[in-house]
Amino acid sequence: MAKNNSMIRIVDELPDIKISKEPEDLLCYGFDASRIEGHARAVIWPRTTKDVVRVMQYAYQNEVPVVPRGAGTGMTGGAIPLNRAMVMSFEKMNKLVELDTNNLNVIVEPGLINGRLQRDLEHLGFFYPPDPASMNFCTIGGNVAENAGGPRALKYGVTKDYVMELEAVLPNGDVITTGVRTSKGVVGYDLARLLTGSEGTLAVITKIRLRILPLPEEVITLLAMFDNLEASGKTVSKIIGAKIMPRTLEFMDREAITAVERYKAVGMPKDVEALLLIELDGHPSAITKQAEKIAEICESLNADIKIAEDSSAREKLWEARRAISPALYNLYPEKINEDIVVPRDKIPEMLKGLRKLAEESGISIVNFGHAGDGNIHVNIMADKNDAEKYKKAKALVKDIFSMTLSLGGTISGEHGIGMTKAPYLSMELKKNEIDIMKGIKNLFDPKAILNPGKIFA
Amino acid sequence: MAKNNSMIRIVDELPDIKISKEPEDLLCYGFDASRIEGHARAVIWPRTTKDVVRVMQYAYQNEVPVVPRGAGTGMTGGAIPLNRAMVMSFEKMNKLVELDTNNLNVIVEPGLINGRLQRDLEHLGFFYPPDPASMNFCTIGGNVAENAGGPRALKYGVTKDYVMELEAVLPNGDVITTGVRTSKGVVGYDLARLLTGSEGTLAVITKIRLRILPLPEEVITLLAMFDNLEASGKTVSKIIGAKIMPRTLEFMDREAITAVERYKAVGMPKDVEALLLIELDGHPSAITKQAEKIAEICESLNADIKIAEDSSAREKLWEARRAISPALYNLYPEKINEDIVVPRDKIPEMLKGLRKLAEESGISIVNFGHAGDGNIHVNIMADKNDAEKYKKAKALVKDIFSMTLSLGGTISGEHGIGMTKAPYLSMELKKNEIDIMKGIKNLFDPKAILNPGKIFA
Repeated sequence: MAKNNSMIRIVDELPDIKISKEPEDLLCYGFDASRIEGHARAVIWPRTTKDVVRVMQYAYQNEVPVVPRGAGTGMTGGAIPLNRAMVMSFEKMNKLVELDTNNLNVIVEPGLINGRLQRDLEHLGFFYPPDPASMNFCTIGGNVAENAGGPRALKYGVTKDYVMELEAVLPNGDVITTGVRTSKGVVGYDLARLLTGSEGTLAVITKIRLRILPLPEEVITLLAMFDNLEASGKTVSKIIGAKIMPRTLEFMDREAITAVERYKAVGMPKDVEALLLIELDGHPSAITKQAEKIAEICESLNADIKIAEDSSAREKLWEARRAISPALYNLYPEKINEDIVVPRDKIPEMLKGLRKLAEESGISIVNFGHAGDGNIHVNIMADKNDAEKYKKAKALVKDIFSMTLSLGGTISGEHGIGMTKAPYLSMELKKNEIDIMKGIKNLFDPKAILNPGKIFA
Repeated sequence: MAKNNSMIRIVDELPDIKISKEPEDLLCYGFDASRIEGHARAVIWPRTTKDVVRVMQYAYQNEVPVVPRGAGTGMTGGAIPLNRAMVMSFEKMNKLVELDTNNLNVIVEPGLINGRLQRDLEHLGFFYPPDPASMNFCTIGGNVAENAGGPRALKYGVTKDYVMELEAVLPNGDVITTGVRTSKGVVGYDLARLLTGSEGTLAVITKIRLRILPLPEEVITLLAMFDNLEASGKTVSKIIGAKIMPRTLEFMDREAITAVERYKAVGMPKDVEALLLIELDGHPSAITKQAEKIAEICESLNADIKIAEDSSAREKLWEARRAISPALYNLYPEKINEDIVVPRDKIPEMLKGLRKLAEESGISIVNFGHAGDGNIHVNIMADKNDAEKYKKAKALVKDIFSMTLSLGGTISGEHGIGMTKAPYLSMELKKNEIDIMKGIKNLFDPKAILNPGKIFA
């Protein structure tokens, strides 16, 4: 389909848009955090919606595949260029366009870094809750494409709960604006939500209006240390059972703690079986009372509890939490990372099942994640140098997904399907459900030029 | 398309499903709160998903149009049977199927009354926020189909923010289950959100899993009385500007107050220009502080403030609020009711514009609604007995929508498009956006048998 001479032509036709086919660019933009290597035809950096329109018109006429790309922090290969796609990077479209404090929303370009937005807003007393672990690198555009979550999703929901309005360019170059700039709206089908989490397969998002909140008055961060795994799971259930909704309830097991301390010593306790990082926010007296209740619950389950004394102590704990994934990659560069979710009260059963799988296979499985959500990041510590073991590790994925689904869960809580989970899609969705999704894909992208090879294997 | 002998055949083919073509049933199920009269071919009451499947298989094979119906409380004619459709009423599918307090969700059948669910949950210490004014009659299935809102949407969002998982029957009788029973999930496109608010045009919803919350610890209800309209608008902005997020910020103008008092005397103050009904929920000391701040803001704008002393005083205020719509119908049975939304800080401008339209046309316009959301229920007090004036009143709708859109608003906040707003759809959406929506409709319902004549004029 792809025309061979398209590179020369696109440079001729779009002379004022930065484009590269330097080998180092093709290399850097050919892979993402999934560590899959793709092959980019070229990399292009639009600066405006108009630029995106022109690129898509060109791509549509010439049937050149295009992959929109944020920061490439996705875990499932969503930003990998397949079919010699052209990578459209949003690094130059990274502005905070408008901050509307009266109506509590912001307009941003897709390339804006999540952490940057967080800090800018907090400085002014506002709050954007979604906080993926990669928040200091990942972009809002990527967050919207993947419907990113993060620890605070427990209380505050995920990206889709904040998307109000999207400007997007269809594969044929048409611009649509969907959703509303008001807090409510029911005019026609909800295309804004449909695009959110569609992994760049339906349209190229060029502008995003996000709902923001007033910054919570106070935050209390607690670290609970358990000498057995099961007690940590029980604690999660008891906290929710006490009708307390912390903003985070993060879990890490002993292997995760050890890996972090080896990678970046922050002084985490090493002689425990599991940790919960619990954060409360809200009115000072309300959360003080909640923290006391949580301490009581933890003590009743023989856990030690520590309170972060100030914001730097808090940041240190979160640094440790965010370092888990890089720390594990550091140990096992080929580890397989899945982000399954089970109903919250099924976590103990899931962790028990995972331990059994690890014992039976002789392959270490490290678990951490958002216990309050039932969202566990399951890391199969695979090593490609041992071919047989690696094959076994790969086979574990299917067992883990089966177990997840039998407990009423889902195979992806926040990473999306991309390439790595595409072979397993039909484990969770029925054929008629997948057919509808393929129909929607075909409706938006009849020439199949937008992020080909993703979601549907 | 419709076969004439289909009635006899459906009774033969589905002998164990209750079906009626008695004139009184056809009459009762032929109209809804929009007061449009449709013509039902028959009324059918499924008891199970299996029943719905059989009806849809029959309808699909015989190309018989079907309209799913909750309680018929919709304002835009979504439940009106057109093309001699068969009305599928969910009165017999009204159970609370499962209450999962560990994972904070419920499964309900579509015919369950919203207010019934509210009370059952509150009794157990849980909370389902969406509270349309018709909550004591309307069904959860209808709420999902219309993506219903309500006063508490300000703090808690609308129905779509609570829909986790849907079981639905496609027009051809296929069953899909979409969404997740966990708090997160990004596997494929978000069909659950696509069905929410699709007004029964894509699939028949047969089971609904809703997220629930712990019941807030305490509620404070305040009534603020203004001697000028503008001050009430400023108060709304100042409350939000003070980073207070009440759960409701309801507005009514003098005409609305007078109408309610005439209809159902509850002792509302009659000599004021506008009222705000402000409700806070959360931790007692947090909301007490917020209530003090709100009182301060109101006083600075010369408003009197009254606190509901107990739950019966609170319920009385809400009774008055919920009586506005029936009270206005009582005065003008043919009044035209639109639920436009503007960005919150544009409310004063919108109200000013509405007053000007009323003055110019000589037709009274009564306003009330969710000021915190910018969602105003604009009531054009039209009288069909005066044909010329009624025509003028109808023409006002377009002016009101133009004004709304020019302020960055939307023509429907919570009522949907149905029939009454269908002629205006293209004022808000571009042709390419409508085309995508029509494509989605065609994908789900290629024979166009599900709720024909709605959304797309």
